[in-house]
Amino acid sequence: MQKARRDAAHFVDDYLPALLAQASQLISGEFHRVVTAHGFSVSEWRVLATLAGNEPMSIGSLAQITTIKQPTVTRLLDRMEAKGYVQRVENDGDRRITLVRITPTGTRMVSRLIPLAREHEQRVLEPFGLERAEDLKSTLRSIVELHRSSGSDGLDED
Amino acid sequence: MQKARRDAAHFVDDYLPALLAQASQLISGEFHRVVTAHGFSVSEWRVLATLAGNEPMSIGSLAQITTIKQPTVTRLLDRMEAKGYVQRVENDGDRRITLVRITPTGTRMVSRLIPLAREHEQRVLEPFGLERAEDLKSTLRSIVELHRSSGSDGLDED
Repeated sequence: MQKARRDAAHFVDDYLPALLAQASQLISGEFHRVVTAHGFSVSEWRVLATLAGNEPMSIGSLAQITTIKQPTVTRLLDRMEAKGYVQRVENDGDRRITLVRITPTGTRMVSRLIPLAREHEQRVLEPFGLERAEDLKSTLRSIVELHRSSGSDGLDED
Repeated sequence: MQKARRDAAHFVDDYLPALLAQASQLISGEFHRVVTAHGFSVSEWRVLATLAGNEPMSIGSLAQITTIKQPTVTRLLDRMEAKGYVQRVENDGDRRITLVRITPTGTRMVSRLIPLAREHEQRVLEPFGLERAEDLKSTLRSIVELHRSSGSDGLDED
């Protein structure tokens, strides 16, 4: 099967969206076993990791970076706020926009996972060497910046 | 917000799984609008694109490449078989393994989308130039090959 796939002049093996989806699913899936073993849901981990060390963020930005649908993020934030991990805050500049920030409790909780996440990432990147690893991340960052929909940053009223 | 995110020494901006997930979601999402406008579901597109021009494939391989959960693939294949897009075939070597192949009808249907998918991919990769685009795909292919779970290829009985 493996060999046949490589021999064939085969669309999906060379199709960027398919490669991105598979790489994302495999790599995230590996670390999600660590996340759930520590008592977090995958969505909680994504939200806390996104807010950690960051400015308060709109729910739209949070949805985009965590790749969780916005209504799901909104419900999730209710539960995480009840646990004391995050807080909704008013935006001084525009009161229609709700911002979300991580609490000291949330920071303490996620700080147990971040070093493990960095270790896992290093193991994934190790076979490629520093330069190729940096090239990969830099290209991915550019793709995200070029394709991020301009309308979803800061226009979400929750 | 954008600026604040870049200024902060901020975990998630430099975390490979987060970059992969966002790039994957943004790029796939763009093309999925084309897919649904042509009357396909996203899952149908993924299955047909994976089988197109390919050897018959186990349901486990199909699940891995399409990043759709295996029970979902199984139900989806029932519907796609009813539409005449795919066929289940017996594996000569091991009768416990069901293989799936695309039909001529399925090939005809998907061949309307593949050129549009290639065009979209080219537009995504264009800003990076040929070499950086090839580097990206080659690194992603290696990640997939290194992390693909060895047990999921060909062991699915459906």
